[in-house]
Amino acid sequence: MANAIRALAMDAVQKANSGHPGMPMGMAEIAVALWAGHYRHNPANPKWINRDRFLLSNGHGSMLHYALLHLAGYDVSMDDLRNFRQLHSKTPGHPEVDITPGVETTTGPLGQGIANGVGMALAEWLLASQFNKPGLDVVDHYTWVFLGDGCLMEGISHEACALAGTLRLNKLIALYDDNGISIDGKVEGWFTDDTPQRFEAYGWNVIRNVDGHDVAAVDAAIAQAKQSDRPTLICCKTIIGKGSPNLQGGDKVHGAALGDKEVAAVRAHLEWAHEPFVIPQDVYAAWDAKEQGAAVEGEWNKLFAAYQAQFPQEAAELQRRMAGDLPANFDEVLAKAIAATVEKKENIATRKASQNAIQALAPALPEFLGGSADLTGSNLTNWKEIVPVRSGQPGNHINYGVREFGMSAIMNGVALHGGFIPFGATFLTFSDYSRNALRMAALMKQRSIFVFTHDSIGLGEDGPTHQSVEHISSLRLIPQLDNWRPCDTTESAVAWGAAVQRRHGPSTLIFSRQNLPYQERSAEQVANIAKGGYVLQDVADAKVTLIATGSEVELAVAAAAALAGEGIAARVVSMPSTDVFDRQDAAYKKAVLGAAPRVAIEAGVTDFWYKYVGLEGAVVGIDSFGESAPAGVLFKHFGFTVENVVAKAKSVL
Amino acid sequence: MANAIRALAMDAVQKANSGHPGMPMGMAEIAVALWAGHYRHNPANPKWINRDRFLLSNGHGSMLHYALLHLAGYDVSMDDLRNFRQLHSKTPGHPEVDITPGVETTTGPLGQGIANGVGMALAEWLLASQFNKPGLDVVDHYTWVFLGDGCLMEGISHEACALAGTLRLNKLIALYDDNGISIDGKVEGWFTDDTPQRFEAYGWNVIRNVDGHDVAAVDAAIAQAKQSDRPTLICCKTIIGKGSPNLQGGDKVHGAALGDKEVAAVRAHLEWAHEPFVIPQDVYAAWDAKEQGAAVEGEWNKLFAAYQAQFPQEAAELQRRMAGDLPANFDEVLAKAIAATVEKKENIATRKASQNAIQALAPALPEFLGGSADLTGSNLTNWKEIVPVRSGQPGNHINYGVREFGMSAIMNGVALHGGFIPFGATFLTFSDYSRNALRMAALMKQRSIFVFTHDSIGLGEDGPTHQSVEHISSLRLIPQLDNWRPCDTTESAVAWGAAVQRRHGPSTLIFSRQNLPYQERSAEQVANIAKGGYVLQDVADAKVTLIATGSEVELAVAAAAALAGEGIAARVVSMPSTDVFDRQDAAYKKAVLGAAPRVAIEAGVTDFWYKYVGLEGAVVGIDSFGESAPAGVLFKHFGFTVENVVAKAKSVL
Repeated sequence: MANAIRALAMDAVQKANSGHPGMPMGMAEIAVALWAGHYRHNPANPKWINRDRFLLSNGHGSMLHYALLHLAGYDVSMDDLRNFRQLHSKTPGHPEVDITPGVETTTGPLGQGIANGVGMALAEWLLASQFNKPGLDVVDHYTWVFLGDGCLMEGISHEACALAGTLRLNKLIALYDDNGISIDGKVEGWFTDDTPQRFEAYGWNVIRNVDGHDVAAVDAAIAQAKQSDRPTLICCKTIIGKGSPNLQGGDKVHGAALGDKEVAAVRAHLEWAHEPFVIPQDVYAAWDAKEQGAAVEGEWNKLFAAYQAQFPQEAAELQRRMAGDLPANFDEVLAKAIAATVEKKENIATRKASQNAIQALAPALPEFLGGSADLTGSNLTNWKEIVPVRSGQPGNHINYGVREFGMSAIMNGVALHGGFIPFGATFLTFSDYSRNALRMAALMKQRSIFVFTHDSIGLGEDGPTHQSVEHISSLRLIPQLDNWRPCDTTESAVAWGAAVQRRHGPSTLIFSRQNLPYQERSAEQVANIAKGGYVLQDVADAKVTLIATGSEVELAVAAAAALAGEGIAARVVSMPSTDVFDRQDAAYKKAVLGAAPRVAIEAGVTDFWYKYVGLEGAVVGIDSFGESAPAGVLFKHFGFTVENVVAKAKSVL
Repeated sequence: MANAIRALAMDAVQKANSGHPGMPMGMAEIAVALWAGHYRHNPANPKWINRDRFLLSNGHGSMLHYALLHLAGYDVSMDDLRNFRQLHSKTPGHPEVDITPGVETTTGPLGQGIANGVGMALAEWLLASQFNKPGLDVVDHYTWVFLGDGCLMEGISHEACALAGTLRLNKLIALYDDNGISIDGKVEGWFTDDTPQRFEAYGWNVIRNVDGHDVAAVDAAIAQAKQSDRPTLICCKTIIGKGSPNLQGGDKVHGAALGDKEVAAVRAHLEWAHEPFVIPQDVYAAWDAKEQGAAVEGEWNKLFAAYQAQFPQEAAELQRRMAGDLPANFDEVLAKAIAATVEKKENIATRKASQNAIQALAPALPEFLGGSADLTGSNLTNWKEIVPVRSGQPGNHINYGVREFGMSAIMNGVALHGGFIPFGATFLTFSDYSRNALRMAALMKQRSIFVFTHDSIGLGEDGPTHQSVEHISSLRLIPQLDNWRPCDTTESAVAWGAAVQRRHGPSTLIFSRQNLPYQERSAEQVANIAKGGYVLQDVADAKVTLIATGSEVELAVAAAAALAGEGIAARVVSMPSTDVFDRQDAAYKKAVLGAAPRVAIEAGVTDFWYKYVGLEGAVVGIDSFGESAPAGVLFKHFGFTVENVVAKAKSVL
């Protein structure tokens, strides 16, 4: 069974002349132990909600997973394997969720797979606590993660695994491919951690010194892990590229095709007499998981039917949440939340407006799972009814600790698992720390909501290390990520609504530390906020259009008044989300931006805005780092004044 | 002595009504033990090259450092302390290098300070190995780092400290402020690591359970640490905000002024009868380090004089390197390297061209300290004469392991220490992992050179997780960071030269995986590369200007030829560095860009380019994620074809 994986992996890599044979060949027996002995799944229904989750954190070994999926009976054909790494195939270079049935997350960027796994195990635990009833454990599965040296060197493995240990996520079981090799060669020159000791320091159950090529030994370790009250790391000693007589145990087998000669040598060495992409029937039969899969899901279906009979509401609710659908009354709740802001007209920080929006929506959204990277009181992600998640104590708000990247990748895991809408917060500047997890959320089209407060020099005295200048524009460059920077309470509520309603994609919600004034709007204007950009103040025959976001909308409005005083008619456009605005039809965009010359105003770098104002327009921004001083002093120092905006507006007339 | 720190910290925070009193009040005795007993420095000469380095990784406690500097006799006056957190003061919210004498690095973003410290200890060790002679240890100092729970939760602490343990950087001594509190409250809910065990797993010397309020105990621990053959973590149990009778030990004392009432209560509790910003003479006398500083530097000056007498060349070389000056023949070596590319006209990947440039420059640059985050053979950062750095074996190339963020922050520490020009590499996409360290390099104006290869969909089969689309533009948004994306061997050599010559700022060098054709140029054109953008192919009366970077310059040239075939004259501008180009005078920029309509071509997101092409121009780019397929297939799939560029060019005519 293991050699079938080896053959498929090396042949697919050889055919593509690209890929990573070393890991699949080295982890083949571990895969046999897990998939043949423990992994509960149904190849005919990869979306069965109570399936075990299986993740390849060392995603470059994708052929291992594809081979397993094919052999177990998923809809991954031999032709799909032949098309490894070809355009629009089911078998891309690294595993991608929603492209290949049975792939639970997209991996490749090292360390994030294990963090996603922590998120899935967290989601399973919390969901179980909300829905299971005595004797009716309808949510009850394991999360399995394969990982390698690379994942363990990455800092995110520290963040995610430390939190998993603290929370005692005992249904998370990671299998470590301890082969002593990374791309640069033998890891002993740069990676000498005592990894078992490190994970014991996190409170994990660690099973040491397992022979990763002994199926029975791995099987026994897994059986033991399943009994633990803590997450488990099974340390499997392996030989990278095992089966390759001339390359195994070295770095050359990691990331390149073996070459025809060595492929032939492997065949001889393993006594694998079959042609490339041919698997004998007895091996197929041994791997086939369709019947067992139907049985395990069938059992669960019976259990769920019993649950449904006794708890029809809970059953429907679980199905709704796992489908990612919003409650039937959500639109109404949101409309009410928005209307409340219009009524109250509060002049508050948008981070506070965000908290108000959370407070308004949360009672209707039991799937909300909030959190902050140790800035709860600053980010204001908490609401009245929160229950903090602690070891042994499920809840709906997570103190992630000072772990921005870990938080974000864990959120992605939660979103991938289903049943929750995760949101988590830090200061906008520290979006840098988590940036690749935002990218992965966007690539995977997951509903992770990233809340970033303290969004500019407006945070004041903490200075340039904490003041974002490039971040807002820089996040806008990530494809498929919707970014919102609201200017007041109403825009903040609309932005929250948009993020929640965006079933297939992540959003960032970017809020101020400082108070911002409420803007008056007509009902039509309120409705237009959701279009990402709209005319906030119009005048007949505008000579100039001022476009602003967030805290600078106030300035644009004041500048328009000053310009009016000088007889210059100025339109004000509020643009809380350029991403969403860009998706509107050409007529709407043209109508909003108008034909007059344009000035964009944002307390951030200017480059991005030329796509709206053109070479004839102007941008009031900040192309240097900030300074440490009170916010009011800084806005003046950096030219965010009515005088400066007026001057810039005149310069483009 | 400790209470003087407490008083200054609470009073300065109170006056600014902003800041973090908890850490300075909690670490006051630790600071006494270190500064009064062990720290070798000279307040009169903060740039003395053999001083100990002192870093506050928990930089929010900046008032601790400012108080220490003031008390020890640095050029930090009581007025400076009164101006805490005010515009252009010497005492910004977080410590900033080059603003405050005695501050060695800019901190605030947690975890990076300890990583900078690893870099400084690394630099000290390597520099000592290159310059010290028997009996003449002219490079011989410690690196001291204060850090807190936040730093230890951050993933980067794992990356940097694991490597420090592997390399046995025994002159790195970290003092851990183990106060059990982070912003969200008692850390026991989210941070339960056994930190001593974790650091032992890294091979550190760990000193446990030190009473952080017992100066003698901390002193003894430090004395023990100095004897170790491994880096040391001293775990000091402390009470955050100690001295504040009503707030100490809680999270409220962490990051806000105490309030007048509690400030008075502290005064009473500590029996500190002095007015705000008044320190009695006997306390000043106890802290004053000027005399001892003069003595320790004086001793070293004698040592260095002896060294100079025996090894005049080495002495001059050490001085040159610590000043950051390049060798006298550098311009010549660089010119030769550039000329060699012009002569050879090689069609090779720019990552290979980069390696050629490194090979050409390295023999003239003993300060080169290369490295890669486990992608040496892919990034091609190595050269013929490298000596890999290993435990107990100094060298000039570092296998950083799969630790991109740690690598980058360590490089910043190396640059800050002086004596080296660090460069380190990963794939461009994983610049995300290290992004905030790039930002910090830019903020600190350090000569860290970040090499990023595999810069687009051109890497092919590894797919969207590995293919940059937003990264190039996104790096351009970071202030003070120079980004280069060369199109061939000559531009690659020029870019390397620019990065090395940029004494006060970091650069990224962005290279292709795939081969790119050599471009013919006149001598003037070769000289113009250093201006960041230049006319590569000109025609009389151009109707359209094609602007391209890196691998797309080839496409622009081919499209210009096709346009010529259709009777449309097209100019080609190569723009390897928009950052550098933007700094040229208006006349040059206008001359290069010309008056004709413009089309920009880059295998990345389009938004950024409108600042050059305007609303009437066009951009050939990619505003989605990539795909897994061979590179040639992808370029065609995403429209990087002569036909498409020609069509776009015609659309703007």
